[in-house]
Amino acid sequence: MLDYRKDIDNLPVYDVVERDWNIKVNANESGWNLPPLVEERVLSSLSRIAFNRYPNTEPEDLSEIIAKRFGLQKENVWLGNGSSEIIDKIFYAFGGEGHKIVYMQPSFSMYPICVKSADAEGIAVPLDDDYKFNAEKFIEAVKSQKASLAVVCNPNNPTGGLIPVEDIEKIAKEIDCAFLVDEAYVEFAGKKASAVSLMSKYPHLMVARTFSKAFGLAAIRVGYLLADKDIISTVGKVFKPYYLNVLSTVVASVVMQMYDEFDPRIEMVISERDRMYEEFLSLPGVKVYPSDTNFLLLRYDKAKELNERLLNYGIGVRSFGNAPMLDNCLRISIGTPEENNAVMKAIRNFAEGR
Amino acid sequence: MLDYRKDIDNLPVYDVVERDWNIKVNANESGWNLPPLVEERVLSSLSRIAFNRYPNTEPEDLSEIIAKRFGLQKENVWLGNGSSEIIDKIFYAFGGEGHKIVYMQPSFSMYPICVKSADAEGIAVPLDDDYKFNAEKFIEAVKSQKASLAVVCNPNNPTGGLIPVEDIEKIAKEIDCAFLVDEAYVEFAGKKASAVSLMSKYPHLMVARTFSKAFGLAAIRVGYLLADKDIISTVGKVFKPYYLNVLSTVVASVVMQMYDEFDPRIEMVISERDRMYEEFLSLPGVKVYPSDTNFLLLRYDKAKELNERLLNYGIGVRSFGNAPMLDNCLRISIGTPEENNAVMKAIRNFAEGR
Repeated sequence: MLDYRKDIDNLPVYDVVERDWNIKVNANESGWNLPPLVEERVLSSLSRIAFNRYPNTEPEDLSEIIAKRFGLQKENVWLGNGSSEIIDKIFYAFGGEGHKIVYMQPSFSMYPICVKSADAEGIAVPLDDDYKFNAEKFIEAVKSQKASLAVVCNPNNPTGGLIPVEDIEKIAKEIDCAFLVDEAYVEFAGKKASAVSLMSKYPHLMVARTFSKAFGLAAIRVGYLLADKDIISTVGKVFKPYYLNVLSTVVASVVMQMYDEFDPRIEMVISERDRMYEEFLSLPGVKVYPSDTNFLLLRYDKAKELNERLLNYGIGVRSFGNAPMLDNCLRISIGTPEENNAVMKAIRNFAEGR
Repeated sequence: MLDYRKDIDNLPVYDVVERDWNIKVNANESGWNLPPLVEERVLSSLSRIAFNRYPNTEPEDLSEIIAKRFGLQKENVWLGNGSSEIIDKIFYAFGGEGHKIVYMQPSFSMYPICVKSADAEGIAVPLDDDYKFNAEKFIEAVKSQKASLAVVCNPNNPTGGLIPVEDIEKIAKEIDCAFLVDEAYVEFAGKKASAVSLMSKYPHLMVARTFSKAFGLAAIRVGYLLADKDIISTVGKVFKPYYLNVLSTVVASVVMQMYDEFDPRIEMVISERDRMYEEFLSLPGVKVYPSDTNFLLLRYDKAKELNERLLNYGIGVRSFGNAPMLDNCLRISIGTPEENNAVMKAIRNFAEGR
């Protein structure tokens, strides 16, 4: 018997087995590949890479470009293999025995997994009815548990709701532990949704962002942390050298400099989401939750049967198995208008008994 | 004061600050970018990526290609962001309080860093005189310390020496804990140097490999673990979903299928290394160690002054600061013949007092 790390067998596994979908709206990806103008620049940058060299100035260049966009310094930016890696390392940096990490429930399913691998204790604060966030309850949990880290996903995955920036500020004001706002979907929530502007006032407030959603770059796995420079320099120690490859870094740099090219698509997703929301409202027996993201959460007594019907059509949506507070829920990403129409038609047919 | 993980301030940092070198022979990179035929196929593959989709079948496809090459199953392969990530996660998987990890000294400088972040205890077994590996001493340390993991770098970085496969087998036979052979440089050591063929007989023996050295792909950060399928499935739990990006995976797949295109370069490096070794032998006061890698280790009383001279020429070599057993040592990677000539000329001039 090999002498593995204690409890390794109990590490939860995030199940991401995929199949060949006709329509894939299960992972909150963008329905579109890169805009042609961006793709041209991306491929041209890739053709100039010295494949034989370790990453050198590329990560720093990208940090600089990101910092500039937010009016920050490059010392306020740390890159990761997706915001998942940022989250994982932050949990590790504030984890260890006796450390408690508070997060909302339901929320991003990676949080409890990262808690485990950080050897920390997770405290899940349930959302109120209709998945409403209760700032007082959250603050109370952070304080009474003497947490080392508090995490909110904003807007929240998989419920879709946005915590107003005033509530984020209230939390930042009331708690003094590290406070991570995971803004993976914030680009779909309007220009004033982000907590980045609070960072100068509350140095314990950190913001995680990703290129995977609004910028349609799930394949490259790049995310970033915006934080006080002391936090960045300490958390940075938890990353090993050369953890980020040059290809992804270069692609993200091009995209960050062509940020505005993505605006029409983001607006399209928002308008499609709102259209789909209205349509779901009209379906018998289906409850749909307001969303500031690129997905919608449905609750439906026949969610299991509906999911099976969709599987038969080759339509992949996200169901949540036995995840707490998500019984009978399905999460549906907003794809292209054609994809959305096909998904809606299939669901409407099922809901209307056809 | 933020409540960081205990001892985070004591985490050692691997210093990789770079500058604009005229000749960069400090990181054991390949001196050449991709062979033209390979580059063409790589860029064509990159142009077909769905950037908007999370990694799907690509990692499995690459595992399959790698497995096939070694006559293994894809269940025997696990991919990482460089073999560094493989090593880091293996240390984590066999780490935790009370777990001891035995490795040789001097060896790859990441080992003690990974020991720390795995919350394990590191046991460094010193090499004998002239950096000779002593299998009995190593076995004795593993047994007496009741180690959970034993690690050898073979051939060894930064000393360059190869442990014969018979000694690897002797270790595998004598110890029953997990046994990792880090073969980052093995392609430069001849066809019979690898321990992969021992895996079927010794299921606790694992082999780590990388695309960064012989295949000149340091920029993409892909490495892999070959191991028993039970080890792969347990160690795999320590990785988070989507940890590896599609671009790097696709590039590695192309290269693995064009493996033989790299043979002439590998042979060129070997012949250049042997030529350089002979030349160093002739330099007054310089000791050079036999190498089965793409670098040479020198010991020289005036190593510090020589390094400063090289810095002035914009030649980057690796010095080791206060690392144990590496006083007055410099490690010099084998570059292109032109680079090697320039490096040799600079060092010869210095050693001969010019």
